[in-house]
Amino acid sequence: MPELRKDPITGRWVIIATDRAKRPTDFSRDQVTLLGAANCPFCPGHEHKTPPEVLAFRNGSRPNEPGWSLRVVPNKFPALRVEGELSREGEGLYDKMNGVGAHEVIVESPEHVISLGDLPEKRVEDLFWAFRDRINDLKKDRRLRYIILFKNHGEAAGASLEHTHSQLIALPVVPKRVQEEIDGARKYHEFKERCVYCDIARQELSEGSRLILETEQLAVIAPYAARFPFETWILPKRHESHFENAEIPTIQSLGSAVRTVVRKFDKVLEHPPFNLMVHTAPVQEGPIVHYHWHVELIPKLTRVAGFEWGTGFYINPTPPEEAAAFLKDARV
Amino acid sequence: MPELRKDPITGRWVIIATDRAKRPTDFSRDQVTLLGAANCPFCPGHEHKTPPEVLAFRNGSRPNEPGWSLRVVPNKFPALRVEGELSREGEGLYDKMNGVGAHEVIVESPEHVISLGDLPEKRVEDLFWAFRDRINDLKKDRRLRYIILFKNHGEAAGASLEHTHSQLIALPVVPKRVQEEIDGARKYHEFKERCVYCDIARQELSEGSRLILETEQLAVIAPYAARFPFETWILPKRHESHFENAEIPTIQSLGSAVRTVVRKFDKVLEHPPFNLMVHTAPVQEGPIVHYHWHVELIPKLTRVAGFEWGTGFYINPTPPEEAAAFLKDARV
Repeated sequence: MPELRKDPITGRWVIIATDRAKRPTDFSRDQVTLLGAANCPFCPGHEHKTPPEVLAFRNGSRPNEPGWSLRVVPNKFPALRVEGELSREGEGLYDKMNGVGAHEVIVESPEHVISLGDLPEKRVEDLFWAFRDRINDLKKDRRLRYIILFKNHGEAAGASLEHTHSQLIALPVVPKRVQEEIDGARKYHEFKERCVYCDIARQELSEGSRLILETEQLAVIAPYAARFPFETWILPKRHESHFENAEIPTIQSLGSAVRTVVRKFDKVLEHPPFNLMVHTAPVQEGPIVHYHWHVELIPKLTRVAGFEWGTGFYINPTPPEEAAAFLKDARV
Repeated sequence: MPELRKDPITGRWVIIATDRAKRPTDFSRDQVTLLGAANCPFCPGHEHKTPPEVLAFRNGSRPNEPGWSLRVVPNKFPALRVEGELSREGEGLYDKMNGVGAHEVIVESPEHVISLGDLPEKRVEDLFWAFRDRINDLKKDRRLRYIILFKNHGEAAGASLEHTHSQLIALPVVPKRVQEEIDGARKYHEFKERCVYCDIARQELSEGSRLILETEQLAVIAPYAARFPFETWILPKRHESHFENAEIPTIQSLGSAVRTVVRKFDKVLEHPPFNLMVHTAPVQEGPIVHYHWHVELIPKLTRVAGFEWGTGFYINPTPPEEAAAFLKDARV
């Protein structure tokens, strides 16, 4: 059973994978195996290579058989497990709890395609419908307090399989980084009586120098204090704290916007590895007036080094205004 | 002039390098050039290839000429600059300030040696004496509030030159990650009336399962909630918030302990890339009863991916107890 442990100084939780621990020699060969379509566990006809699906978009075909356009399966090597009691325990001055949670894989396409940018728009949109469906199902388990959708594209960004897929992790605690955003946004709201994300979207739309793309529902921007070169945020214009409560046209627009951003990355940065994350409010809480769900995309172009680990301070060698101009101008 | 920008949500500062901005094509070739000793700017005889030194340990030879055992020079491509006013400014809802600070390189050895573990003990110790001297000099500039020493070893850990060296950055703000440690430690102290780091050292020394090494002055441990496999902390046993106020035997012991840990990394993990960071209290503040300087070492074995970026939650595949056993047992 994996274990959740809390850093006694900062309160940060970590997942310690106690049951399939890596030994020193496991790290030297830590490389992606390019399996090709013939051996890919996510390709149609290989459904038996994954645990049974928890969701699939199909046209009448039977579960765990070919005929799907999107498929959600439990991760075969999960960081957390749904089974077991959620018990907190001390260990001297330390705190831990059982690694209760969920870890699922969303296979976005039956084709052995590598880039999200090469999928039809509807497929990318379906990723977000699947995420919404999974949140609405998982949040019935009241132990699960936070659910994140993320995508690791490319080996340098942490992907271990090439067939395009995203992942979802449901956690029994609200992560520190999310709590910081919520707390920071609350302070802004106490002072201004406005949502900071709504204000950011307004300023970027009117000022324009960091605006990459605008749709009726979304503002796509290079954030003012970007940590990384070409970091990109997608902000819904309409205030909403919970992704699962987003309106239909917003989710439709999100699929198209994400696909466009990835195509722009591919063009401007020559198919870079990247990470995509959906930031949303804790699932067991009601609507929050000061928090605003959004999507972050980070191309993996620089290395995080001692300065960043030691301080949480980032050095970004590309001003967001220049990144925005390159991405805005890229025709895709 | 570089610019410091503040994230309006979390309050995190970033350094935006506005004057030597990287364009998209600069990233695809972002690889370490192995120069060899003949073209190395840090080797003796090449002193003119760096800015004039700000500190050197020499035996009577003249500044900026050979005959040194350790040399500190301003970074030729600094992230921050000492010149200029420290002015804060708004930009709509955003905040920024001039990138005032210092960025220096500490060349730990005249020999073109790559690993800190291959240097004599005294050389490693001298790195920490040099850091102390530079703190005591730089802190006279009251604009500089925080000084970090860090080392990036190996390309994957962010090193761009192979000749063994560390770096120092002085910042006009206290970084968020440091403030979090100080705030967290204060909360513990309010409740327990004890320093959390002192308590951690005591528990690890008596319990033993995460203890890697003990000297009269130091406890070397795998932290209970380690974010990364083989993450290692060096805690002074005697309480002291400021590194620059550490006692002489403690700094002597630190040089030897760091060298031993790196040799253990090299043996157990086959010369891994790694980061080393000294965490210490803000330089303009007096002694802090609840904060405790320490050193963190992180071998770069796994990739930080979407889940970690999105949540600040880490998945560590090697329990600290197992990492400690491997490192403790390695004969070096």
